[in-house]
Amino acid sequence: MNADTGLLNPVWAGTGADTLLADEAWVGAMLEFEVALARTQARLGVIPASAVGPIERAAARGGIDIADLAVRARGSANPVVELVRELTAAVAGDAAQYVHRGGTSQDVFDSAAMLLAARALRATDADLTRVADALAGLADRYRHTPMAGRTLTQHAVPTTFGLKAAGWLTLVLDARDRLRQVLATLPVQVGGAAGTLAAYVEYARAAGVPVDGHAAALTEGVAEELGLRAPAAPWHTQRMPMTDIGWVVVAMTGALGKIAADVLGGTRTEVGELAEPAGELSGRSSAMPQKRNPVLATLLVSAARQAPAHALVLGQAMLSEDERSAGTWQSEWQPLREALRLAGGAARTAAELVAGLRVAPERMAANLSSTGGMIVAERLNVVLAPVLGRATAKALLGRSAGRVAAGDGRFGDLLAAAPELAPVIDRLPELLAPENYLGAADELIDRVLARHSTRDSR
Amino acid sequence: MNADTGLLNPVWAGTGADTLLADEAWVGAMLEFEVALARTQARLGVIPASAVGPIERAAARGGIDIADLAVRARGSANPVVELVRELTAAVAGDAAQYVHRGGTSQDVFDSAAMLLAARALRATDADLTRVADALAGLADRYRHTPMAGRTLTQHAVPTTFGLKAAGWLTLVLDARDRLRQVLATLPVQVGGAAGTLAAYVEYARAAGVPVDGHAAALTEGVAEELGLRAPAAPWHTQRMPMTDIGWVVVAMTGALGKIAADVLGGTRTEVGELAEPAGELSGRSSAMPQKRNPVLATLLVSAARQAPAHALVLGQAMLSEDERSAGTWQSEWQPLREALRLAGGAARTAAELVAGLRVAPERMAANLSSTGGMIVAERLNVVLAPVLGRATAKALLGRSAGRVAAGDGRFGDLLAAAPELAPVIDRLPELLAPENYLGAADELIDRVLARHSTRDSR
Amino acid sequence: MNADTGLLNPVWAGTGADTLLADEAWVGAMLEFEVALARTQARLGVIPASAVGPIERAAARGGIDIADLAVRARGSANPVVELVRELTAAVAGDAAQYVHRGGTSQDVFDSAAMLLAARALRATDADLTRVADALAGLADRYRHTPMAGRTLTQHAVPTTFGLKAAGWLTLVLDARDRLRQVLATLPVQVGGAAGTLAAYVEYARAAGVPVDGHAAALTEGVAEELGLRAPAAPWHTQRMPMTDIGWVVVAMTGALGKIAADVLGGTRTEVGELAEPAGELSGRSSAMPQKRNPVLATLLVSAARQAPAHALVLGQAMLSEDERSAGTWQSEWQPLREALRLAGGAARTAAELVAGLRVAPERMAANLSSTGGMIVAERLNVVLAPVLGRATAKALLGRSAGRVAAGDGRFGDLLAAAPELAPVIDRLPELLAPENYLGAADELIDRVLARHSTRDSR
Amino acid sequence: MNADTGLLNPVWAGTGADTLLADEAWVGAMLEFEVALARTQARLGVIPASAVGPIERAAARGGIDIADLAVRARGSANPVVELVRELTAAVAGDAAQYVHRGGTSQDVFDSAAMLLAARALRATDADLTRVADALAGLADRYRHTPMAGRTLTQHAVPTTFGLKAAGWLTLVLDARDRLRQVLATLPVQVGGAAGTLAAYVEYARAAGVPVDGHAAALTEGVAEELGLRAPAAPWHTQRMPMTDIGWVVVAMTGALGKIAADVLGGTRTEVGELAEPAGELSGRSSAMPQKRNPVLATLLVSAARQAPAHALVLGQAMLSEDERSAGTWQSEWQPLREALRLAGGAARTAAELVAGLRVAPERMAANLSSTGGMIVAERLNVVLAPVLGRATAKALLGRSAGRVAAGDGRFGDLLAAAPELAPVIDRLPELLAPENYLGAADELIDRVLARHSTRDSR
Repeated sequence: MNADTGLLNPVWAGTGADTLLADEAWVGAMLEFEVALARTQARLGVIPASAVGPIERAAARGGIDIADLAVRARGSANPVVELVRELTAAVAGDAAQYVHRGGTSQDVFDSAAMLLAARALRATDADLTRVADALAGLADRYRHTPMAGRTLTQHAVPTTFGLKAAGWLTLVLDARDRLRQVLATLPVQVGGAAGTLAAYVEYARAAGVPVDGHAAALTEGVAEELGLRAPAAPWHTQRMPMTDIGWVVVAMTGALGKIAADVLGGTRTEVGELAEPAGELSGRSSAMPQKRNPVLATLLVSAARQAPAHALVLGQAMLSEDERSAGTWQSEWQPLREALRLAGGAARTAAELVAGLRVAPERMAANLSSTGGMIVAERLNVVLAPVLGRATAKALLGRSAGRVAAGDGRFGDLLAAAPELAPVIDRLPELLAPENYLGAADELIDRVLARHSTRDSR
Repeated sequence: MNADTGLLNPVWAGTGADTLLADEAWVGAMLEFEVALARTQARLGVIPASAVGPIERAAARGGIDIADLAVRARGSANPVVELVRELTAAVAGDAAQYVHRGGTSQDVFDSAAMLLAARALRATDADLTRVADALAGLADRYRHTPMAGRTLTQHAVPTTFGLKAAGWLTLVLDARDRLRQVLATLPVQVGGAAGTLAAYVEYARAAGVPVDGHAAALTEGVAEELGLRAPAAPWHTQRMPMTDIGWVVVAMTGALGKIAADVLGGTRTEVGELAEPAGELSGRSSAMPQKRNPVLATLLVSAARQAPAHALVLGQAMLSEDERSAGTWQSEWQPLREALRLAGGAARTAAELVAGLRVAPERMAANLSSTGGMIVAERLNVVLAPVLGRATAKALLGRSAGRVAAGDGRFGDLLAAAPELAPVIDRLPELLAPENYLGAADELIDRVLARHSTRDSR
Repeated sequence: MNADTGLLNPVWAGTGADTLLADEAWVGAMLEFEVALARTQARLGVIPASAVGPIERAAARGGIDIADLAVRARGSANPVVELVRELTAAVAGDAAQYVHRGGTSQDVFDSAAMLLAARALRATDADLTRVADALAGLADRYRHTPMAGRTLTQHAVPTTFGLKAAGWLTLVLDARDRLRQVLATLPVQVGGAAGTLAAYVEYARAAGVPVDGHAAALTEGVAEELGLRAPAAPWHTQRMPMTDIGWVVVAMTGALGKIAADVLGGTRTEVGELAEPAGELSGRSSAMPQKRNPVLATLLVSAARQAPAHALVLGQAMLSEDERSAGTWQSEWQPLREALRLAGGAARTAAELVAGLRVAPERMAANLSSTGGMIVAERLNVVLAPVLGRATAKALLGRSAGRVAAGDGRFGDLLAAAPELAPVIDRLPELLAPENYLGAADELIDRVLARHSTRDSR
Repeated sequence: MNADTGLLNPVWAGTGADTLLADEAWVGAMLEFEVALARTQARLGVIPASAVGPIERAAARGGIDIADLAVRARGSANPVVELVRELTAAVAGDAAQYVHRGGTSQDVFDSAAMLLAARALRATDADLTRVADALAGLADRYRHTPMAGRTLTQHAVPTTFGLKAAGWLTLVLDARDRLRQVLATLPVQVGGAAGTLAAYVEYARAAGVPVDGHAAALTEGVAEELGLRAPAAPWHTQRMPMTDIGWVVVAMTGALGKIAADVLGGTRTEVGELAEPAGELSGRSSAMPQKRNPVLATLLVSAARQAPAHALVLGQAMLSEDERSAGTWQSEWQPLREALRLAGGAARTAAELVAGLRVAPERMAANLSSTGGMIVAERLNVVLAPVLGRATAKALLGRSAGRVAAGDGRFGDLLAAAPELAPVIDRLPELLAPENYLGAADELIDRVLARHSTRDSR
């Protein structure tokens, strides 16, 4: 029974995020913890050095029936107990007794989860970087390409596509910053049955190993093996790392979702300013040959709409009772996986989208001029007020806009015919040109690109 | 790559909910739609009757590489386009052209989703019924078993375990009612490219079939084939069915989660009033042989904490633009599946839990008397006020409770020694007996059981 | 300190939903419960009939410092304890002792919440009915007004504005059905300290009132006083009513949000098919006189985006432990209020929007023809396949669409010039006319309007 | 009409968080932006210095009818338009024309939101610091107080109350770190109509002020006036700051909610290890004089259950289209306020709770020994295996635990009587003492306290 290969979430199917977080990867990561524990305990003298090899070999052997393991997980409400049983059985000879020595299910599972989260986030980081670099290119290339700025669905004032891309870039850099910040803090879990490391310490004592500082030594050793952070104390029911991961997933999928929202707006048939990269199949409809669906943006929105709900469950898991919660801990697992898959798939998808995004400056220009100059009415207001008096200027512009709405002519033509404007009639063409009302767009692009460059140089 | 067999959600692994909603089941249900469409169109004369057999046989053949299909789904942001391509290729000869005639991806996908939802909900209904029957048994069996009623964590007044079970039963009946209500309304999707059924109608016209009423005939035909409801109109972006399913999933997992919350409270080491059914492995810890973890309740809580987030995404999908949304529709799929899996797995898990729940009346009695009668202080207040005067009664009870808190004796003893109580000293034992202060518990149980019986007789 | 008058949620400010759910309304409803309890207990003989008048008068007196009460609520984690204290103090003479007799905070608060929910939902029902009636008018008036059907942002095939309005109407009827269903089930809460009604029964006993059936009699009496349903048993921690209310709020705000999403799409500057009703201020910008912002649709979307989160908290409150939960119950209150306010405000706002919605059939026609006939490519595919052969037809249409995309002409012109089409050249104008490819739009409108009529006749 | 003074959210009523985020505070903060803009523009030479005084005085005058403003906000879907109108009308003489020069509603609203967020977070920081300091005291004071460590509701192995407090402290420090991180980044919003600052620049040009670098100068100037960060570019639809605030609110309320969850567990009647601070009214029930409800913990849980839903809406608002979204932006406002209120109220409430928390070491000891030594079974397993052989040790412990479960004696007694244990009978008392199996508890406390000290020294 193959419950899920991503058929219902094409945003991550086949992107690598699926493999990194598949059941097999979880089992693998749990076994990595057991190996890391054995190596560290051997190095510290708690178990014999000779036990490590057999444990490593058994862990590497594979062949675990994961679907069966999943069902057997019901017996203890987690998959670790049975996995450890299988691992122990697979270890040859005397070394078997040193498997999972002093360990507890939560140490194994949480450490594995952090290990996979780290791997998934690193892969996502690489894709985000591709996105950022492509966006920096767009911001620079289209810095002088005017387009309509839109607020509450209406043309407001002109902007540039370069500035729009710079806005997207800002979000991607923000998201990547947050990703890296959290990535650097993902902690190993080494706490034993209730967070005191008592059995770990007791086994150390039994082996004649000094127990003072053993907790720190063991935690740091396992952390180093796994490339995770050694926390000051176990975090069995101090679930801040889950909340943090939820946050970066929202930040990432949201940042990419914003790009997608704008791409969707720009690809509307009536707008036509943007199009997704062409491909063999992409977005084609056999029955409607004219259609080119924005499928990548669609996938990105699908991720951005799902991810916050997973982050919510992760954040709510802070409310964990005692030294290990009954139900709350277990509710984190699938949301964590799905959140990371969505973020990873979204980053890969966004990289495809941004790399091949097709921009139509001529449609941007056409849309910009489609309202006959009304899009610079704000500017006319500023410029004409001192010339005509505030009241007169405002009345003229309002009246003209009203006539346009009534189908009574084009804005620029009406102004050109207005007697009040006679004194400035020569300036009118310049005043009406959208490209003359771009404010600080260029300067803002530079500021964002400077931020991007700085990051890259790190 | 086997992304997910339920390893991280043991609440549904191996419960049947996994199989009913696995990728294979989705592909199968989509093919069922294509067959139902072909059969209906053949019956209505739109396609030749001879085309049906080849389509049925191709659909039944299987052998689709689902993981590959999932990846190819990225090309159109849904798995239907490529699946139809495969099906068409698999149909022998001339009949191939009649595959998916007039159809659109959303018709296929949404109808398949409703088909699977119906199957999953029917299976869940059966399990909920097992839960309800078991709870009715508990409510009746323990109707005279007093226990502490607890509010804000504190003993308040006595209740009975029968009434507690009746409260659980109420929720399960409520949830099952809602499930059945929604189950009866799940609609087929037959709308064509944008909800007008235009291509379906055009093909009918081309085949010389009367087009008046064809939409209704086609919709009803396909609905009947699939056992779904024929809606008045397509619902491409009228997503109430998703909101409804989300609601029943919250109702079901929440109802079962409430049972679990109380079981967890009752199994606390200090409370010890309830225990989960014993099993070979259930809840055992090899390192801590004394532990018997409440694993089934833990699984139920894990489901109840995840499900509402999926329902949220489904409810938010109401905000779908145009005749098919870009991203919102696609965001429903995995949450729908996961929500149904959680509900189905939870119902199965609850049936196990309730069938074998172990009740300890003697621990209930011990806890009830542990406060030396303070749990009936409310009653004493009622009874003593007319005897002693309100102020005196209140002062006496408050003072005695204060002395108990200060470790200065047991409540009943202090009262027995209080001179004010001399006139009623003979009644004191009766007044202090928790079983004499159960209010309408018995009557309430009868009311709930009557409701349960009525349902069953339907 | 006036924390909130709706300044940050203009969707409900001043719509009536604010007043119905304001702090004062909550205090008022809690006092109504106390009066209803007193009246019922007097009728049943538990308290003297003479006590009712003084309690009624004290409850009606008003003058409670609500801000102060809110702060004092911290002492018991609910506002009832202190409110009862104030009420008791305000009751003249001997009747004071009969205030809240046998009652508990949760009975007062939950009953008040249901009372306010009922009132808010009834007001919302009236507004939804106005919306439905207006939509039925639009569906009928514009049943022959073709417009582009859009999927994944792209023109797909033609539809009509009448069918779009019928789709909106479907959702509003669905939502209203659900509202009425839940409205009919809102239960009173009469349970006493832990859901056994023990103190109520004890006071009855003390007054010489028969205790058999007292729970039912009391519950039904209070329910009748308040116009609520009498449940089979108290629901202190059986929170299905909250889940139900959350569901209808999602259904309502989502249904109205869908309308808003389409209005926003239709008012985009480039689309221009729809506009909000004109008003003195509505949507005007002083700096940009050309702007007419779709403010009502904006408010509706703001509600639809907030409401599901409140419903989530309500649904999660099912997970309530014991006979009264510590924190979960208390977490329902503000989300319940805010959810109902959002739904009520949204319904009022939608009524304004729909009543004055301006439709531009000429812009719909212009957009429809803007792709030179490509929007009926699906139809051409159906019709031409038997004439030209499937492969030829498909190739011709695909090639022509490709040339259009390359800026190489208009679709209809390219087809007219295609030699393959010579045999059917006379039919081409008819085939290219969007109004000839509306499928069953008209029939579907009739079906939806029939549903609407049936409802109204109830 | 006073919609809300916190009556339904006593966690923040009267805590200061209400005032900091009340409607009046929002209006005040919006006016502060207008003053800051005028001051900056005057300093840069865009408006006359003489205009500043009248604007400041008008802003300071107050007297705005906020409830009326809230209703009028419906006309533009935000409260700024009408507020600016009022402010402009209130400015004496010629200076009126310089109000809001070049400004847009979103600049005003977003900057005001960040200003209030900063103030609320600073107040919350102070309360979190009080909480952290008190927890550090508890961790140190009770470092040698053993208690049962509990996992999945069952006694697992011993821990200490000091370590539990250290775990709480870890979360509070984590939350405070995140708070401070976000607090340092809250950005001012200065973008003009569509994020290009075009009107600001145009006014500068009109006043003869150099336009190169004006965007930066203006943004930095206003940021400095308001004590906010100057971002590289406007963030009209780059809503990362909202996501960040949502995250810290989840972190804070979750951290405090975890403390509350443990306090609630510890105050259960059967557990009795913890009690809330005594107060005049706190948690008292007049009808049940024995009750002392954990009201502060209850309030904390109520906050922790509500806050993530608000954070979700904030995170979802990343999906904002264009240069200003229609509905998404507007959906952020109330969730932002409510999230900050909940966090602020929770921090204040937690400070009360932690400062007066009553700890009962004797009940901890009693509970710890209640299972007759079974809580150290894990240790016995470790110690006895080398002595008796693994199989024998395990069988003995399992058999003894089984007999205890069957009511067949106490664990320690059974072991003492077991012939296998004769060789180590002298060690048994030491082995069974829970205080001898605390693992690294003390060391872990030191590590957490060291972290706390470091923070404090900053």
